[in-house]
Amino acid sequence: MLFGEIDPPQRLLMGPGPVNAHPRVLRAMSADLLGQFDPEMTGYMEQVMALYRPVFGTDNRWTFLIDGTARAAIEASLVSLVEPGDTVLVIDFGRFGLLLKEILQRIGAPIVSVEAPWGQVMPMEAIAAAIERHGPRVVASVHGDTSTTMAQPLAGLGDLCRRAGAYSYVDATATLGGMAIDTDAWGVDIVTGGLQKCLGGPSGSAPITVSDRAAERIFARRHVEQGIRRADIADGRGPRIASNYFDLAMVMDYWSEKRLNHHTEATTMLYGARECARVALGEGLPARFERHARAGASVTAAARAMGLRVFGDDAHRMTNVTAIHIPEGVDGEAVRRRMREDFEIEIGTAFGPLAGKVWRIGAMGYNAMKHKVALTIGALEAVLRAEGYATPPGAGVDAALAAWNG
Amino acid sequence: MLFGEIDPPQRLLMGPGPVNAHPRVLRAMSADLLGQFDPEMTGYMEQVMALYRPVFGTDNRWTFLIDGTARAAIEASLVSLVEPGDTVLVIDFGRFGLLLKEILQRIGAPIVSVEAPWGQVMPMEAIAAAIERHGPRVVASVHGDTSTTMAQPLAGLGDLCRRAGAYSYVDATATLGGMAIDTDAWGVDIVTGGLQKCLGGPSGSAPITVSDRAAERIFARRHVEQGIRRADIADGRGPRIASNYFDLAMVMDYWSEKRLNHHTEATTMLYGARECARVALGEGLPARFERHARAGASVTAAARAMGLRVFGDDAHRMTNVTAIHIPEGVDGEAVRRRMREDFEIEIGTAFGPLAGKVWRIGAMGYNAMKHKVALTIGALEAVLRAEGYATPPGAGVDAALAAWNG
Repeated sequence: MLFGEIDPPQRLLMGPGPVNAHPRVLRAMSADLLGQFDPEMTGYMEQVMALYRPVFGTDNRWTFLIDGTARAAIEASLVSLVEPGDTVLVIDFGRFGLLLKEILQRIGAPIVSVEAPWGQVMPMEAIAAAIERHGPRVVASVHGDTSTTMAQPLAGLGDLCRRAGAYSYVDATATLGGMAIDTDAWGVDIVTGGLQKCLGGPSGSAPITVSDRAAERIFARRHVEQGIRRADIADGRGPRIASNYFDLAMVMDYWSEKRLNHHTEATTMLYGARECARVALGEGLPARFERHARAGASVTAAARAMGLRVFGDDAHRMTNVTAIHIPEGVDGEAVRRRMREDFEIEIGTAFGPLAGKVWRIGAMGYNAMKHKVALTIGALEAVLRAEGYATPPGAGVDAALAAWNG
Repeated sequence: MLFGEIDPPQRLLMGPGPVNAHPRVLRAMSADLLGQFDPEMTGYMEQVMALYRPVFGTDNRWTFLIDGTARAAIEASLVSLVEPGDTVLVIDFGRFGLLLKEILQRIGAPIVSVEAPWGQVMPMEAIAAAIERHGPRVVASVHGDTSTTMAQPLAGLGDLCRRAGAYSYVDATATLGGMAIDTDAWGVDIVTGGLQKCLGGPSGSAPITVSDRAAERIFARRHVEQGIRRADIADGRGPRIASNYFDLAMVMDYWSEKRLNHHTEATTMLYGARECARVALGEGLPARFERHARAGASVTAAARAMGLRVFGDDAHRMTNVTAIHIPEGVDGEAVRRRMREDFEIEIGTAFGPLAGKVWRIGAMGYNAMKHKVALTIGALEAVLRAEGYATPPGAGVDAALAAWNG
């Protein structure tokens, strides 16, 4: 039984991600493979490093890819940065803050946290007070948490951490390429992302940037595999990193001129990641952030014009995903099903305390476009009407267009 | 600086892998994305499970993909299967046996091993004696180790392990889809692979199969993330798995009808993995194994006809990669460079004790073809001549063709 050829429906993915890939990204991924250490392949690796520096807003030498989904880069960062016994302060304002804790628990790190209710973020003063109180060695935060659609302000975090002798980690999976990521201006040490949100590519490769100071700490834990030890690469004296695959010291040695053999780079995903960055930088990051901001404003305005309530704090909204309360008496899953079956449009469900309470509408990467938002809102209006929820005809689409146009 | 469009040279990859991808695989990967829980996406996941069962020679329900390179699946298997304090017996006959130990050391497992010199394999009686002597809880082996080009016979291993109350793990990265993998007949518990060798796809997705008995052990360690806990999924009582990304209990829950949210499946890689299996099963596995056997015999015969020595034990040779001693006085790297620059053909270098001593010529997946082997040998003859090593003109190619055809 071989099943048929791959032939997915042409669906518009307006959920919290993954979203439709930019066609240029998929085309780039159809190029044939190269040997792992062929000069053209290592040349592409160098280019990827150069392309992702501006995407991350950094000059960090150590800017590269982790071969796995976004969560692989989170785990690689934490398992490599956090040493046994280090206390970690987690800034927790949603499901992905919980994920940071979950990963840290498995690493065995003592965890302290500051917790904002879902739909809010943490004031920087509260973070400062927690750093003061707990003296953590590492501070970890999500930037945009799609579970709550909130974006945590991070300006000043790096200063706070450095003054306290702490390292910092930021999970920017859901915002990289869509909202400004100012790694160097924030002064944070490690930031990771994913392709499947604002960068408009497929999941499976995760960009990462590491400051020199964090790299130094990680290289102190270097322990090269016995099968590939070399005279020119000395082991560090720090505690060995508890994962081989996620050992950033070895991964950085692989991405350096040392070209230490580690995994076999996921060539096709690297081609895709490279093209995601080329598309983003070709558009220009400010224009791209503006496009995402218009998309978010457009969805929010449309929802309100339709008489729907938007979840969460207006002042700290992510631009690329918006949570909308499911109105009383409406079956949220029936709406999603009808959106999919009648319009081939996917909108998102929710997690945890918001499960069954909100839909999440995303407009990011290749899908943060006026017509896609307007068409989605028009379809939603028709579906809500069919499901018995009356909204002023045309109001949503008009509001969406008005908000987009300025 | 955006660099140019992706445009790798059209190079024939005749090393130990990665090799050129089958064009059907790259085409399948150009399909657009789907939402993670869209019915078509979960349908494709089900198809992948069905397609990889015959590839692994198993009826195991738990046959799926790990989102990472082959080594990600190795680490996921070991960190999920091995509990704290479990002694693990490693069958070590090359670099990838050392990698198993390396990963296990980081997990903190007590390790015992039986070690064959590079170029040989371990007799099953020696394995039986080691199991008897050490009473391991897990036995781990590589199937085909590309570093030595040897394939460890595994018939009977499962029986030995089960009688001793042990679980078994096999790394079949380099042989899956090219040599017979008889998971159920071997009676082994977990087998993992990769796409970038005999399956003719890109690195970045790793097929895995898990026996019911191993799955039961792993589910006893289930610990669902706080952000996504559900009443219908109970935690186990065993020790929590030390990695989130590699927690096979959560990954299996994601691949089951429970559809527990874990990572965002790497959709494009899944499309590729699906097509790799369709290509392999469409050809027919016996025909495919025969094709790889001809390729290996052809390279071996050609090397000998050229007066070159082939490394390792003839009785246990992998069919898809062959190590050839670099003749006295010949600069191995100069030969590889000239192969690449004059003929756009990549052949492999070597690791550890074989570094600088052998070349490794691979012919696997889409490249295990008569004309590709013959062209490679013809090129090698010309390059060796240019580098001052005389070989009877035409002898290599003639021997390659004769071995293939006969």
